Amino acid sequence: MEYDGTEYHGFQAQPGLPTVQGVLKEVVARVTGERVHLAASGRTDAGVHAKGQVVAFDSHSHLSSSGMTRALNFYLPGDVAVVEAFVVRAGFDPRREARSRHYRYTILNRKSRSPLGKRQSYHVPQPLNVDAMALAAGILEGEHDFAPFASPLKTEASTRRTVLRANVLRKGEMVLFDMEANAFLPLQVRRTVGALVKVGQGKMEVGDFQRMAESGRPGMAGPTAPAQGLCLMKVSYDRPLGELRIEDF
Amino acid sequence: MEYDGTEYHGFQAQPGLPTVQGVLKEVVARVTGERVHLAASGRTDAGVHAKGQVVAFDSHSHLSSSGMTRALNFYLPGDVAVVEAFVVRAGFDPRREARSRHYRYTILNRKSRSPLGKRQSYHVPQPLNVDAMALAAGILEGEHDFAPFASPLKTEASTRRTVLRANVLRKGEMVLFDMEANAFLPLQVRRTVGALVKVGQGKMEVGDFQRMAESGRPGMAGPTAPAQGLCLMKVSYDRPLGELRIEDF
Repeated sequence: MEYDGTEYHGFQAQPGLPTVQGVLKEVVARVTGERVHLAASGRTDAGVHAKGQVVAFDSHSHLSSSGMTRALNFYLPGDVAVVEAFVVRAGFDPRREARSRHYRYTILNRKSRSPLGKRQSYHVPQPLNVDAMALAAGILEGEHDFAPFASPLKTEASTRRTVLRANVLRKGEMVLFDMEANAFLPLQVRRTVGALVKVGQGKMEVGDFQRMAESGRPGMAGPTAPAQGLCLMKVSYDRPLGELRIEDF
Repeated sequence: MEYDGTEYHGFQAQPGLPTVQGVLKEVVARVTGERVHLAASGRTDAGVHAKGQVVAFDSHSHLSSSGMTRALNFYLPGDVAVVEAFVVRAGFDPRREARSRHYRYTILNRKSRSPLGKRQSYHVPQPLNVDAMALAAGILEGEHDFAPFASPLKTEASTRRTVLRANVLRKGEMVLFDMEANAFLPLQVRRTVGALVKVGQGKMEVGDFQRMAESGRPGMAGPTAPAQGLCLMKVSYDRPLGELRIEDF
């Protein structure tokens, strides 16, 4: 699924609030007549976007995959869409079977604000040293204790995660931060961006970033960068998503 | 200037309708206390975006260039912004002195609609043959009579224009059409895109496109592609825009 998170209180259904899961559930009920349980690869927070959210549900519908896609997209609001639907084996769990998640955080780095970019980027008007940011990001790759990037208030069973990729590159006026990991702590990408921007602005040395990242002390990283710059790009499984498809009946 | 044209009835001021020129004029009056004449590089139509519109006005304001930029952006609505402001020589005419305009038209070419792309692209769900489109676009380069791409209702003094660049390329799910010319006829880019999409869908042969383009018969090209895919990217002058700057006082 792809969605513009601007108007939603995140993916997960909450009573009385507009959520992506909430609208999808209503639309599935409308199309299939069934009140289904929607299993997703993970939550996205309020205001966060997705290009590759993966959602699964059980249904007795006789619609083909393309018929289901068309029917859901007909009823879904303009800011939420099904990109593609497959019939997969029963019991497919998009969260537990996910091997990795790829998030992209987009920073608009120019003096003036951008009317065309504002819904999907975080505006940092000061010049950013992208080389320093890339160096700091690289430190995060591998298996580490990411407690400093976790909330200082919550105690997690484990804050160890494996980061497959963490890189920063400039593309014109945009600075893109791509991070792929087996799983993420709540707000981890946005806390990481907050710290990386400090490095880019020269307010924090790369060495200090490294000491902070390796300190094991919860909640040291931040501030939390705003939601609208973040997008869940892709969730990866053992095989490409399309290969999970089983024959339409 | 950069603007998201979605909510505007085009650039040019029209009584009682929201226009980019209208809001800018109000904001300049608020900042400088002066009712100025705004000279632009050209009009953009309702719903069309801009990343590089060039606007000039005379003012007795004592604000510096950066102070003027900040003041205008403070009062302008979120969907309109000044990217950069310079003091230029008196009499600078952004329309008559422009050497060329570069427009980009963005087509989203995938089956499902795109919540994140919809404000700034035209959704064509059928597969497009980009090679054929690029071949057809190339025919337009050079000095030609573009009457077939003009409105059939209006008679222009001349419909000859010089196209410096007309190319089509695929970038993931996007098909981008870039066209740069000394000047454009009304709706020329959108009529060109309408015809190119027919070529891409196999509804029109490249040879037929060429015969149509060279026919000299007004209004043959089309249909007119929707406004939201179009963006005025850049207006070029004899020298880079920044070099037109004269010393701040």
